[in-house]
Amino acid sequence: MGVSGSEFSIIRRHFQLPDRSAPEWLRLGIGDDAALIEPPPGRLLVSTLDTLVSGRHFPEATEAASIGWKALAVNASDLVAMAADPAHFLLALTLPDDDDAWLERFADGLFRAADVFGMILVGGDTTRGPLSVSIQANGWVDAGRAVTRSGARPGDRIWISGRVGDAALALRLLRGEVDADRVDAATTAACFTALNYPRPRIELIPLLRQQASAAIDVSDGLAADLGHLLDASGVGAVIEGERLPVNRYLRDTDGFDLALTGGDDYELLFTAPPEADAALDAAARELPFALTRIGSVTESGRHLVLDGRHRDLDDYRGYDHFRE
Amino acid sequence: MGVSGSEFSIIRRHFQLPDRSAPEWLRLGIGDDAALIEPPPGRLLVSTLDTLVSGRHFPEATEAASIGWKALAVNASDLVAMAADPAHFLLALTLPDDDDAWLERFADGLFRAADVFGMILVGGDTTRGPLSVSIQANGWVDAGRAVTRSGARPGDRIWISGRVGDAALALRLLRGEVDADRVDAATTAACFTALNYPRPRIELIPLLRQQASAAIDVSDGLAADLGHLLDASGVGAVIEGERLPVNRYLRDTDGFDLALTGGDDYELLFTAPPEADAALDAAARELPFALTRIGSVTESGRHLVLDGRHRDLDDYRGYDHFRE
Repeated sequence: MGVSGSEFSIIRRHFQLPDRSAPEWLRLGIGDDAALIEPPPGRLLVSTLDTLVSGRHFPEATEAASIGWKALAVNASDLVAMAADPAHFLLALTLPDDDDAWLERFADGLFRAADVFGMILVGGDTTRGPLSVSIQANGWVDAGRAVTRSGARPGDRIWISGRVGDAALALRLLRGEVDADRVDAATTAACFTALNYPRPRIELIPLLRQQASAAIDVSDGLAADLGHLLDASGVGAVIEGERLPVNRYLRDTDGFDLALTGGDDYELLFTAPPEADAALDAAARELPFALTRIGSVTESGRHLVLDGRHRDLDDYRGYDHFRE
Repeated sequence: MGVSGSEFSIIRRHFQLPDRSAPEWLRLGIGDDAALIEPPPGRLLVSTLDTLVSGRHFPEATEAASIGWKALAVNASDLVAMAADPAHFLLALTLPDDDDAWLERFADGLFRAADVFGMILVGGDTTRGPLSVSIQANGWVDAGRAVTRSGARPGDRIWISGRVGDAALALRLLRGEVDADRVDAATTAACFTALNYPRPRIELIPLLRQQASAAIDVSDGLAADLGHLLDASGVGAVIEGERLPVNRYLRDTDGFDLALTGGDDYELLFTAPPEADAALDAAARELPFALTRIGSVTESGRHLVLDGRHRDLDDYRGYDHFRE
């Protein structure tokens, strides 16, 4: 883990909280050369890593607590997209300077997310440099129960959790590209929550294992990520534009472009055979967020049907992270 | 894993080489939201993460192949210090621009290291930004056979692999702080190899498991890292300065300071009870590098004996990474 000098004290002060009791599977946590973890018998390790760079993945003025939360959330979202139970993570934090107040808020956001997602910090490294956060997140899934991008089959339905386009609309508001007076307060609040405190859809993990044929999380935009899933599965799709779950502002302004191209929502996009419709519809009524059927898997082609017209979904493959 | 747009093509082109056959335990590698790995039955997961930032952990002019090699080596070294078998890793690469030639050389160094250490890349993320490399490395060790920092007991011997101070001398040569004409060619070559292509001491893993009471790798300097080990074990030490394995230049110039404070050698420092002396001496004769007994663990205190005088080891706790 290479903790040394000031690094060591940063980790001790902010990331090794004494009141966080270690679970039994964590044989050795922060403070040695590496962590020691006991794998649950019969399960596969699910491993992912994502980096957030200041000014690229989040605006430089972003709250420290949001950066801590989001850095873990985007990784937990990848675990959920594999139907894995989030478990433990390592943190690589590069900081321009020793700012105790900033670190406290960052750690607060990070640990609040860890508590909500059921994850434990087991190691990390802090270095001096331009602000960036890499998190390497791990989960567990029973062998044979993981959901990949490659299992979609023609005839499957396409489902999406929550709403798409909220985070992208928050960025437009931040940049002054959308008139804030035209967006109602509840929508504005929801959009900034989506951007700054995204919620990986951990509630969907059991459903995914039982019903899904393929899954991916929406980080780059619905059209782009659906494209990755279709590529991996070797199939096509038709999306019914009017069914896309969008906020009131996007619906009133025909802002479906933003729903299709906007990234950073971390909603879960998955496919399931038609036989799963009833179970998914029933589950949707119990969930704290929407679950919407937005289209179908086909043999080939990438179609969007909107206002009765067919368009090419690939025209919406965008990349919408914040850019300087 | 969030591979998208140009990221996706970078990983495909440089890091997903078709001729690297996947082992059976790798159920799913690069290309989905996360990797799927089957833990070997009965073993613990050993997990570490280290970041190298350009201009801080290596001079900006460092060869791309060296950066790739070293980023993996410093992490594998942490696994070795736990007596774990290196297995798989994830890469977070932040790059200022798309430089195919640089990436090719970086990947070449990285994969050469992976082949030598017996490791496989299973996932990662590439982002745009100031050059930095985080690697999260994983290994496996039988439950009860891991070696930590905290097991040293009074009476144990203190051992070090290879030579200390070589990497620090290379930095001094680079900075023009040492007259290059006074260092013989073989020493100069060895020093630059230590700095740019450090070798985790994987050959010592079986010996560590059988003989060591505690271990740590020397990344921050021998005195500093020994200090971490002594702190974790709650013991003291006496180091015999004349026994420190140093190169000819350091010996001729009484450069023991550099041997004690210089980091970045990634040698293995460990303790073992006196009963292990014979086995370790015998093993040392078969190893491709030196294995030297440099002192003993005591109840308390941190002493260096040099020229018959006692000094305080804590005066040599330094941090000697490259600084801008």
